[in-house]
Order: sequence, then C-alpha cells, then structure tokens
Amino acid sequence: MKRLTITETADWLNENDGYLILTHKKPDGDTVGSAAALAKSLNSIGKTAYLYRNTEITEKYLPFAEGLFAPDGFEYSKVVSVDTASVTQIAAGAESFSEKVDLAIDHHMSNTGYAGLTCVEDRASCGEIICELTLLLCGKIDRDIADCLYTAVSTDTGCFVYGNTTAATLKSAAVIAEAGADLPRLNKMLFRTKKKSRAMLEGTLYSNMHYYFDGKAAVSTITLKLREETGVTEDDLDDIASLPSGIEGVLAGITLKEQVGSVKVSVRTSGPVNANDICAAFGGGGHRQAAGCTINGDLKYAEEKLIETVGKVLS
Amino acid sequence: MKRLTITETADWLNENDGYLILTHKKPDGDTVGSAAALAKSLNSIGKTAYLYRNTEITEKYLPFAEGLFAPDGFEYSKVVSVDTASVTQIAAGAESFSEKVDLAIDHHMSNTGYAGLTCVEDRASCGEIICELTLLLCGKIDRDIADCLYTAVSTDTGCFVYGNTTAATLKSAAVIAEAGADLPRLNKMLFRTKKKSRAMLEGTLYSNMHYYFDGKAAVSTITLKLREETGVTEDDLDDIASLPSGIEGVLAGITLKEQVGSVKVSVRTSGPVNANDICAAFGGGGHRQAAGCTINGDLKYAEEKLIETVGKVLS
Repeated sequence: MKRLTITETADWLNENDGYLILTHKKPDGDTVGSAAALAKSLNSIGKTAYLYRNTEITEKYLPFAEGLFAPDGFEYSKVVSVDTASVTQIAAGAESFSEKVDLAIDHHMSNTGYAGLTCVEDRASCGEIICELTLLLCGKIDRDIADCLYTAVSTDTGCFVYGNTTAATLKSAAVIAEAGADLPRLNKMLFRTKKKSRAMLEGTLYSNMHYYFDGKAAVSTITLKLREETGVTEDDLDDIASLPSGIEGVLAGITLKEQVGSVKVSVRTSGPVNANDICAAFGGGGHRQAAGCTINGDLKYAEEKLIETVGKVLS
Repeated sequence: MKRLTITETADWLNENDGYLILTHKKPDGDTVGSAAALAKSLNSIGKTAYLYRNTEITEKYLPFAEGLFAPDGFEYSKVVSVDTASVTQIAAGAESFSEKVDLAIDHHMSNTGYAGLTCVEDRASCGEIICELTLLLCGKIDRDIADCLYTAVSTDTGCFVYGNTTAATLKSAAVIAEAGADLPRLNKMLFRTKKKSRAMLEGTLYSNMHYYFDGKAAVSTITLKLREETGVTEDDLDDIASLPSGIEGVLAGITLKEQVGSVKVSVRTSGPVNANDICAAFGGGGHRQAAGCTINGDLKYAEEKLIETVGKVLS
C-alpha cells in the first residue's frame, strides 16, 4: 500500500482511464455523492468512469447515481473505492473486488490500507476530498457535480451541525455553493423533510420517554409493536439513538430496541458520563460518548438493569 | 438618511467613539451575537461601546451579552442599531432612541431608513455584515468575537439549512470557524438541545397530527390544555408552525393555536399551494409559502373551515 496526497491522486486519475467506482454498504449521502461527483468529473475530462451498481442505494440518494451505473459487461481498467474504510465495508455483491481495489479515497483515518494506493485525509467527509480532486481535475465545479458534492459534504455533518464540522468543511461547502449547488432544494430534501412514519415514531418516543435521576437520564423504547404500527424502516431509524441525549439536561440518553428474546441498547452520553463504561457492564462497548450492547431478556428487565448501572455511574 | 457601504461604515466607526448599541425586540441570536461582536470589536481597538440592556434577552443568548451592558449613567455619543428593520422593532424601553439612531447596520432590505446613516446589505444575517466590519476594524477575529459571530450567522439560517443560506453565508462561517469559534459547543447548545417541554410538545403534535387529502395537508393542534400540561413557553413554540409542513408529501401544513374564543392559524405551504390564498379567505395574509390568520370559534370549527378551503385550493 502506498499513500498518495490529493495532488498525486489527481495525477494518477489523469494518467489512467476506465474507472469502476465502488461505494460502501448501507450507502449514505457521502459515499453516493462522492462517487457520483468523481465519475462526473472524470467523464468531463474525457475519461470513462462508472459506478458499481450498489443495489442498496435508497430512493433518497438514487437520483445522484442514476445514469452513472456501469453497463453490463463494462471492462474496467482501474477500481476506485470512495468513503470505504475496509474491505468488509465494500458494497454487497462487490466482494470480488476486495483484492483488486487500485485506489481508495477516504476520510476515515482507520482505513485499513486494503487498496494498492490510498488517499486518506482527516476530513469530516469524503466529499471534501473529492471537492479538491474535482478542482484539480476540471479546474472548476459544474453545477450538477456541485449538487453531488453538496450532498456528500452536508450529509456527513448533519448539515454542518455535528461535532466533526470544521472550518475546512464550511470552506468546501462555500466553494460548492458558489459553483451553483441548489442549496434550498437539497436542504429541503436532505434535512427538512421527515417521513410520515418517522414523524409518528418520534411522536411516540418523545411522548413516552422515561426520565430518571432528575432528568439526567432518559430512556426511549422502540418496541416491535411500534415498528409494526408505524411501518418504520431501517432508514427511519437513522440516528434515532440521539433522540434522548438531545434533551436538555440529559447526560445519559438510552435507546432500547426490542428484538425477539433480547434488547439492543444504544447509549449516548455527554459531560462526565462514559457510555463505554455503561455498556461494558453488559459485555458491550464503544466510545466515551456513544456505545452499545445487547441484553438478553425483555424491555423491562433491560431498562431496570441499565438504570441501576447509570445510577452508579452518575453517583 | 444616507446609505453607507461596509467600508464606509468601518471608517465612520473608526472616526467616532462612545457607542450605545441597540438590539431588537424578541432578541434572537443574530441581533445579540451581532451587537456583542460589534461591541467587542470596537473595545479591542480602544473604543468605548456598550449594549443597551435589552431585558428580553433569554437565557440562551444572555452569556454573549454579559459584561457588555451599558453601566447606569453611561453618556453615549453615538447610537447604533443592529438587525433592526424599523423603529417599531427597537428593544422595549429603548423607544426614546427611535429618533436618535445615528447608524443602522441591517440585513433586512425592508429597512425603513429610520437612522441617520444606514448600512444595509442583502445577507442571510446581520452577523455576516458584522463579520466583515470586524475584519476591517481589527484586521482579525478574536476567539470570543468568533463565538458571537458564529451565533449570529448560524441561528438566522437554522445552522445553514434554511432557504436564505448562500455561498456568502458559508464563506463567513468558514472565516469565523477558522478564527476559532467553538463549533461543537455552540452547535450543541444552539441546535442540538431540545428542552424537555419542547420534546413533550413535539411528541404530542406528531402523535396527534391529522392528515387530509392523501397526506397533502396536515393539521397540528396546540390546545390551551397542552400548553399548560407541557409547560411550554413562547421560546418553545419557536418555529413550531413548520412541523406539519416538514412531513414528506405535505403541501399545506397547518398549525392551530387555541386561544380563548378564537384560533390562531399558521399555514406553511410548498409547491403550487399558496398559503396567502388560504389565509386571505379568513381575513389574514402573508407570503406565498407562509401566512397566518385568526378564526373566531373553536378548534373543531377552525379545522373544518380550513380543510374546506385547502380542499378547494388543492383541486
């Protein structure tokens, strides 16, 4: 594995041709937006570049990838992955490429170095790196490429609100906006529209939140019955674990997802409370502010045990 | 009234001294952040500058203004208003200044020209203008000024998600972030924390939303009883009218606020539906995408009449 700078990566992309671009499993706005922007940038300088047909791309992001999927029998010459930290993350169906990735462009510093060449930079999104590559390759950013880049850069930061947002993120976003990205349309679609099922789910979760220790802990419960009634999909559950910890005064926000015979637990904390400590008590783990575990038993049992543990951590 | 450019405004601020800075009624992040940043910038170049003690400033924004309020008996020489479109908007208690404003710095193109000098620019926030002024006055942005400017620029755009966000907004934000604004702390405080009462309110509103016309219209109802039970304040109701229109497929989102003997109605629309048309039928009005009216009668009556009207508009 050899590390490349962004400039060296642009040079390599300029020298080669016939690109197949891979996205990651559970494709999000960053991987799809980055892949689409890269393919369009390469096309605009006369290169052949297609996206691997990742069938997991949801309705929300599909429009960015449309028309870019590799036709049957496309004979690629170089394989490039975007926003993909390890081979286990490569899109389902594309496992056969895992040993054949020529270049990985990524913003995860944990990138395992599975590709022949790796361009990894510590940015909030892969889109920030692709933005620079587009400027190096094309000298400018076309309007439809700007839309793809905006989607990549904005979604990985929750529209510039998450803790990973930096001055560099905002600078990229400004350049992309200047290039003509349709901010009002994209922001409405990406951030300001809630599915009806998600709205109903949030309604129930907020209404039935359990508070403990003077509001320092909050527990939100997603029962199997609720999932059925509201018809929520995995998409709807995205970031749902941050709901209880987003309430003022809550230091430990706990989300319980009922499963058959067990409960999947997500813990989000702030201040002095360590989520990893709480989850480690149940054989789980994670980071200081976000961790998870699975507890065998029903919801009532899981809640009792967790609150017992949180009580100890708080005192 | 004379119009000044931003550079001319900086020159004028450099030439004078003894500033009293006015904020507007119902002070938001933009007016408080802008006023605080301006006062601190002026202080840092050796000028005396204080904020008028606007007693309406809420807990959320008070920390930015603390230590900057004019001491009793402060003898100002020049009065400057920020983010204030007309004299009727000047902070309560400061009405006596309405004829005495020397300079208005504002981003509302509707500014009535009440001040001797007016620096009005079409930006998403007044903070964007103050950001440029700070750079002209001080040559750099100190970290605590950056926090004030970030608050101003971000709150007026809902953290860069509202339709008013432009490339210039993001560029200002990038400059401010580069100067050391504490993005993680400010974003958490300003955008990622919901009060418990607001969370309960949203829970009830989402759970009890009424949908009509295949989900093209949605009605959310805030009863007097609900307000009492959840203990919500006017602060909690901020932007609550955008809840129903934020649901996928909803073209007309209606929020009913029960009052004694009448119902206050907010309508938010998208696509071809004109909110002004709907509210005009009840003697109200506003803009194409946001309008309001008051209907005499109870909630049931108001909802029926509104849905009748929306039905006609939709067909």
